[in-house]
Amino acid sequence: MVRKPTKEDKFSFGLWTVGWLAADPFGDTTRTALKPWEYAEKLAELGAWGITFHDNDVFPFDATDAERAKIVGKLKDTVDATGLTIEMVTTNTFTHPIFKDGGLTNNDRSIRRFGLRKILRNVDLAAELGATTFVMWGGREGAEYDSSKDLGAVFDRYKEGLDTVAQYIKDQGYNLRIGLEPKPNEPRGDIFLPTVGHALALIAELDNGDIVGLNPEVGHEQMAGLNYTHALAQALNAGKLFHIDLNGQKGLKYDQDLVFGHGDLLSAFFTVDLLVNGFPSGGPRYDGPIHFDYKPSRTDGIEGVWESAAANMEMYIQLAEKARAFRADPEVQEALKLSGIYELAEPTLAEGETIADLLADRSAYEDFDAEAAAARDYHFVDLYEKAVQHLIG
Amino acid sequence: MVRKPTKEDKFSFGLWTVGWLAADPFGDTTRTALKPWEYAEKLAELGAWGITFHDNDVFPFDATDAERAKIVGKLKDTVDATGLTIEMVTTNTFTHPIFKDGGLTNNDRSIRRFGLRKILRNVDLAAELGATTFVMWGGREGAEYDSSKDLGAVFDRYKEGLDTVAQYIKDQGYNLRIGLEPKPNEPRGDIFLPTVGHALALIAELDNGDIVGLNPEVGHEQMAGLNYTHALAQALNAGKLFHIDLNGQKGLKYDQDLVFGHGDLLSAFFTVDLLVNGFPSGGPRYDGPIHFDYKPSRTDGIEGVWESAAANMEMYIQLAEKARAFRADPEVQEALKLSGIYELAEPTLAEGETIADLLADRSAYEDFDAEAAAARDYHFVDLYEKAVQHLIG
Amino acid sequence: MVRKPTKEDKFSFGLWTVGWLAADPFGDTTRTALKPWEYAEKLAELGAWGITFHDNDVFPFDATDAERAKIVGKLKDTVDATGLTIEMVTTNTFTHPIFKDGGLTNNDRSIRRFGLRKILRNVDLAAELGATTFVMWGGREGAEYDSSKDLGAVFDRYKEGLDTVAQYIKDQGYNLRIGLEPKPNEPRGDIFLPTVGHALALIAELDNGDIVGLNPEVGHEQMAGLNYTHALAQALNAGKLFHIDLNGQKGLKYDQDLVFGHGDLLSAFFTVDLLVNGFPSGGPRYDGPIHFDYKPSRTDGIEGVWESAAANMEMYIQLAEKARAFRADPEVQEALKLSGIYELAEPTLAEGETIADLLADRSAYEDFDAEAAAARDYHFVDLYEKAVQHLIG
Amino acid sequence: MVRKPTKEDKFSFGLWTVGWLAADPFGDTTRTALKPWEYAEKLAELGAWGITFHDNDVFPFDATDAERAKIVGKLKDTVDATGLTIEMVTTNTFTHPIFKDGGLTNNDRSIRRFGLRKILRNVDLAAELGATTFVMWGGREGAEYDSSKDLGAVFDRYKEGLDTVAQYIKDQGYNLRIGLEPKPNEPRGDIFLPTVGHALALIAELDNGDIVGLNPEVGHEQMAGLNYTHALAQALNAGKLFHIDLNGQKGLKYDQDLVFGHGDLLSAFFTVDLLVNGFPSGGPRYDGPIHFDYKPSRTDGIEGVWESAAANMEMYIQLAEKARAFRADPEVQEALKLSGIYELAEPTLAEGETIADLLADRSAYEDFDAEAAAARDYHFVDLYEKAVQHLIG
Repeated sequence: MVRKPTKEDKFSFGLWTVGWLAADPFGDTTRTALKPWEYAEKLAELGAWGITFHDNDVFPFDATDAERAKIVGKLKDTVDATGLTIEMVTTNTFTHPIFKDGGLTNNDRSIRRFGLRKILRNVDLAAELGATTFVMWGGREGAEYDSSKDLGAVFDRYKEGLDTVAQYIKDQGYNLRIGLEPKPNEPRGDIFLPTVGHALALIAELDNGDIVGLNPEVGHEQMAGLNYTHALAQALNAGKLFHIDLNGQKGLKYDQDLVFGHGDLLSAFFTVDLLVNGFPSGGPRYDGPIHFDYKPSRTDGIEGVWESAAANMEMYIQLAEKARAFRADPEVQEALKLSGIYELAEPTLAEGETIADLLADRSAYEDFDAEAAAARDYHFVDLYEKAVQHLIG
Repeated sequence: MVRKPTKEDKFSFGLWTVGWLAADPFGDTTRTALKPWEYAEKLAELGAWGITFHDNDVFPFDATDAERAKIVGKLKDTVDATGLTIEMVTTNTFTHPIFKDGGLTNNDRSIRRFGLRKILRNVDLAAELGATTFVMWGGREGAEYDSSKDLGAVFDRYKEGLDTVAQYIKDQGYNLRIGLEPKPNEPRGDIFLPTVGHALALIAELDNGDIVGLNPEVGHEQMAGLNYTHALAQALNAGKLFHIDLNGQKGLKYDQDLVFGHGDLLSAFFTVDLLVNGFPSGGPRYDGPIHFDYKPSRTDGIEGVWESAAANMEMYIQLAEKARAFRADPEVQEALKLSGIYELAEPTLAEGETIADLLADRSAYEDFDAEAAAARDYHFVDLYEKAVQHLIG
Repeated sequence: MVRKPTKEDKFSFGLWTVGWLAADPFGDTTRTALKPWEYAEKLAELGAWGITFHDNDVFPFDATDAERAKIVGKLKDTVDATGLTIEMVTTNTFTHPIFKDGGLTNNDRSIRRFGLRKILRNVDLAAELGATTFVMWGGREGAEYDSSKDLGAVFDRYKEGLDTVAQYIKDQGYNLRIGLEPKPNEPRGDIFLPTVGHALALIAELDNGDIVGLNPEVGHEQMAGLNYTHALAQALNAGKLFHIDLNGQKGLKYDQDLVFGHGDLLSAFFTVDLLVNGFPSGGPRYDGPIHFDYKPSRTDGIEGVWESAAANMEMYIQLAEKARAFRADPEVQEALKLSGIYELAEPTLAEGETIADLLADRSAYEDFDAEAAAARDYHFVDLYEKAVQHLIG
Repeated sequence: MVRKPTKEDKFSFGLWTVGWLAADPFGDTTRTALKPWEYAEKLAELGAWGITFHDNDVFPFDATDAERAKIVGKLKDTVDATGLTIEMVTTNTFTHPIFKDGGLTNNDRSIRRFGLRKILRNVDLAAELGATTFVMWGGREGAEYDSSKDLGAVFDRYKEGLDTVAQYIKDQGYNLRIGLEPKPNEPRGDIFLPTVGHALALIAELDNGDIVGLNPEVGHEQMAGLNYTHALAQALNAGKLFHIDLNGQKGLKYDQDLVFGHGDLLSAFFTVDLLVNGFPSGGPRYDGPIHFDYKPSRTDGIEGVWESAAANMEMYIQLAEKARAFRADPEVQEALKLSGIYELAEPTLAEGETIADLLADRSAYEDFDAEAAAARDYHFVDLYEKAVQHLIG
């Protein structure tokens, strides 16, 4: 029996996850909508600590200010009553047809201006509700046809848009950081920030990049065949892992948003290992929310929705326990040493060693026994099998 | 009939391309080796302007200094006699078993030191031979097993290695820039700099990143399902497109290294369009060598090798002509305008406009007719069809 | 200038193609619906010969018999007035939530019965309207979770369902053949007949398999990374290519349904080459409708819809002309011979040769010069480049 | 602690697995060869029951009859001494350059004849050594270029070749069945029998198809993004699952041949569930050898080779235990019922029910409450989570 989640686990869910009504490209909805506060209430009951949402998960695209205030107020009441945290808010710049060619990089300048305004409005809302992360998923910033964009201008406009939002956050003195969420494709044929790498690279070009980081999603990296844990590591190493989206994906296909661990389970184990244990020789750690961005199966009803929400948390708790046991196991520690895991933290040049020193070190090259070094048995498979045994044993 | 290539085309080939003997994971070599200078001579005859190589394409891993000097000298003589340019040199840190866990990120520190020395040695050679680009493909910097690396230390060591090489180039006053070549996988299960984005991101973290840029390869980006032209655009936009590797790939599978254009032909057309015409509204341009990194088919003999080398150049010349005609076509110009391509270069905020100004502009949001804007017909497919007609018409 | 399509081209379109309103998993519709007969009328005007549809493209899921008859009648009137052919009819067993776990293989027997009834009803309609092909796309016959199906029973039920429909066609004496349409995934995580191969294999197990064949779609095979032309060839070779769905797809991602030729253009060329020229040494040919199953871009309005519909036909006409010229070119004929293309049609054992004869033929093995044979230069790249030159030259 | 394997487990290994010397497309060998009998001896010691091999795993391509006999004899002695079984033999028609365009479908007829002779020779060897399965992997039967083959003739020649081999087996009265091994690509750009489906379809076209079935490999199906367990199920349902190749693969990339379970662990669990428990409602079962076709990591030495061999068996034993416990769990039994798993085995038409009866059953359609049926909650995620808990709990 896996223990129940508690607020200390810092589990949070997007309202759009349990609230997904299960329309897909070939099918109509299979569930009926609850109210935003009803989702929040039930999530609290299941053990969640936080919730997150897009503006239009809570109120309609064309809500009046009064309608908006009323609905948000009701949600806030429930959040307060249940002890939940609204840890992240984001903007929907993808559902309405106005965004069919994107928000920040739409060919149409008037739509870019509209998009920016819609985003800034939600920055205010995020700050007002106490959120500390403002996610920006540019799902419509992309193209199907290579002729349809000035690709140079795309990156100029993307930077302009992000810098404007970040500048506004700074100007207002909000305690908010932006988390970019990359994705390779879907709904666009090619999305402009397809992976964690591309987003990190763009951030490095920003004027206000200091408050812009990443919100990597498991399935999005895996839709490009990439290793999610590697992506987290590069973001962490760059000081840019601001938020995470956990879910599951079974290989290169449409975005599945399965329960965390229900896709590539071994990869999920090593993701949790990094999150709870950090790098073997230390270094930057992630201590933000454990945020799930999944979709309940279209074949499940509302009971199934709650079962799947609970499954995400159950999975994380269990993987965390196993990952801690894995690292604490003396046999594993021996195996990590045998495989040279700890050697990698040692700089290649000794402290104070210059390039000239390295060049002069005949033991490093001229007198080095390459054949002997080449014969090293890293025992990587045995170490991996030990990890798998901790997972399933 | 396509015109013959000339030196003005700046076509260059890796010696390892025409020199590939066609061993693959399931088969022995099908061709016999020529001498490096024989490949160079024939490439010059076919119209190439430059050649490039890894150290061990020319001399063996364990060559003595004297052997190395003799062979390199002979190649240099041919290069001079034929008017070729050695525009790029690179180091093989992947074939010898010593590099089975990588060079710069090997768990074994003594191998990292050996790898660095091997690379620095080739930096000297590159400079001596007049090359201006030094490519670094970290094909073995990766892992199959998530437990086999300290992923934080990986990026620390990668940065240390790159910074050391770049520092050495600066110290020596060499006219050389480093071009990183990303690849998602093969020969490692996951390679640490899987895409152009990840490499750009790492460069931004370097002390000596000013002389480190990208050498993107068509097939490598496509092995992650990504758009190669988009990758070139982001690298150009960041001032980091230092070199290119053109070839062909048919989707997500092993690295095919087909002739340029023999994979995704439409994508190749738009790549050439960007290279010869630049972005529609201007901006950074690429003016480096047109470098082919392909493999002649294993089913072809030596005649087939030269046929395929010629096919790369024929393809580029033809796509360049078509891309120029595409952009010069008045009907296309009209279509580009109709699709809003030129609108994207206009900043979203007007010159001098502040965020406060934008927020105060009711026409941008409160009074904006979103439904009308949403109804815009971008005519993207018609524009694309016009491009395809220029390609095949 | 490409010539206009005529009825002789036998181009047909699904009503759901031009009629797609462009809702996607992350976005609302961007176009408004026309009436079925309005789509038909315009398609006729553009040069189409035929139309096809799912029942619920024309009338709603819950239409009464009278409503159904009225709407179908109106469509029939337009079809007759415009000289169009209704060449294929199919059943929607995927949109309504009742089919969320499939029709023929739903775990719920009552739904399987309902699905069968819905299909049989459309068999009658297809026959009544003069269609000769009845496509069955089992898009919901699949699973996301390996535990959710009895996979043995899946194939039993699939066969039962197909045999029942085929038996009914025979019983009624309808001039109809069933075309199965495979797809690897989307909307289900894994669809049960993922490729042309799997569908051919299942047909071979049917009692009434003689009237069941294939309706392969370009993008569906490419979503599994497979070669569409190879799939057509295997289906043709088995006498099972009953219908085709032409469109475009750019690699392994969600189902894009681009214009034919706007995905993998080189593959499209060889598909058309097979369709118009047949196999080089003869054999079974396809002479059915040239059916397009694509989606107009979500970024295009209704004008763009018609532009894209026209682009499909323009592309096919042009590729057909080029493919004919390719095969008629004497230089290509020489190249085909040099590459041994025609040798493959010659049986490996001579006419009347027994296995014993082969075993006794020392020239085939004991005295065979394997090294000499291994040295053959097939010149495959040069032949391919000749094809590409016919395409773009 | 996982129990040790015994001969009753029927574990077998290809000699080419532990014998792989770890050359890859970008690297030289990292291990040195042992003798075939040394591999066999060690495998027996680790608990294997059987071994398998290609001819040229044991003796060279150009071995004389005497050399061949001597080496095979020595291997046979070891096999006998250790109580091993040679359960499968196969032919290498891919390594030697003569097969660069394939064996059975080579454009060159003389090579097709040579290939057939090489295969027939190994059929004799297989029978002589007591093997009961003869695997045929057509890894070189494919193409990179759509122009390079007469695709109709390809399938004619493939069928001719397979029928010839099968006829010979029958003529000789050998107790052998052929197992085809599909693969989508690598070493060819597209292989002609890319998936289990395509192979099943071709078998249905054979004259001697009764003794031809499948040898599906985990990684090969996954290289096309397909579900391996679904493939096993369709082959079983068709009575064609003759042999299996277990290993691991992490998504769409080069053929990784990881340890079984070290790729997609959840999929491996359900594969073993099917192998040990069969379909939930019964039906055809697999009772052949549990054959591993993996490659020890290139980063491991000879100790690592044996560790990885042992890991395959450890994994299978453990997954089998867990799969049995999963099915035996009363709570799981309840969940299977709730999800309707057992309902699928019930025919859709009742015993004796005719199509006319179905059409007359108003409760099936006219009076059926589709909305109520659509609302069913299948609880698929909860069932899956229960399976995952059995795997890792």
